[in-house]
Amino acid sequence: MSDFVVHNQLLSDCAIVGDADLCRVLLMNDARFPWLILVPRISGLRDFHEVPSEHRPSLFVEIESASNAVKELIDADKINVAALGNQVPQLHVHVIGRLTNDVAWPGPVWGVGTSVSYDSEVQQETIAFVGAAMGLLS
Amino acid sequence: MSDFVVHNQLLSDCAIVGDADLCRVLLMNDARFPWLILVPRISGLRDFHEVPSEHRPSLFVEIESASNAVKELIDADKINVAALGNQVPQLHVHVIGRLTNDVAWPGPVWGVGTSVSYDSEVQQETIAFVGAAMGLLS
Repeated sequence: MSDFVVHNQLLSDCAIVGDADLCRVLLMNDARFPWLILVPRISGLRDFHEVPSEHRPSLFVEIESASNAVKELIDADKINVAALGNQVPQLHVHVIGRLTNDVAWPGPVWGVGTSVSYDSEVQQETIAFVGAAMGLLS
Repeated sequence: MSDFVVHNQLLSDCAIVGDADLCRVLLMNDARFPWLILVPRISGLRDFHEVPSEHRPSLFVEIESASNAVKELIDADKINVAALGNQVPQLHVHVIGRLTNDVAWPGPVWGVGTSVSYDSEVQQETIAFVGAAMGLLS
């Protein structure tokens, strides 16, 4: 995993929360939704099914842990989990907490309206909350 | 799993392809994209992370098998995998083959334009292809 780097576009859109066993965890800089992105720290992955068998249990556990964190953040009604990667080829898994009255409901969040940057204090609090909830190394 | 039934909305939008070990596999009736939906045959699941640990390896294998099938169907450039469930609460995983010149690229497919029903012969051929590629029981 030594040559692993997060794609520039993800770094530009997100703040780094920390590392779980397999994934680097990012917080999308869009205060409208609690939106985490998990990037497996393995170079060269594009599609979800390319995750090697030995790492799949960790990915699932980390999706669960991220789901629970975003659920707690806003008492989410639903969690959206997706590996799309049409715009950024590096495999990354979106974990997004949804409310039935959020601005995109019941549609998906991608491409809806304009993202709203976090207030810097709220962003730091959110990062701290997610890092603690997921037990991440920062 | 005895009281498992596929949600009516999914049955209305899709044709049934067959059963893998864990999931019932459906083909979305939209000829614009090779679009499979995997529904774990366990009652009461809503979010992706609710899949019990002992069934997670099967889900991953079936996502892989579905991904390979849609990839072969159109020599897809990218596979989109997603569990959204904002409109249908029953857990279902979308596996969609994408081309860089399809009508929704590079956005997600949900809510884009109007679905195009399969010609019935093409639909049957597609179901047969996917069933064989995934080794499904029909």
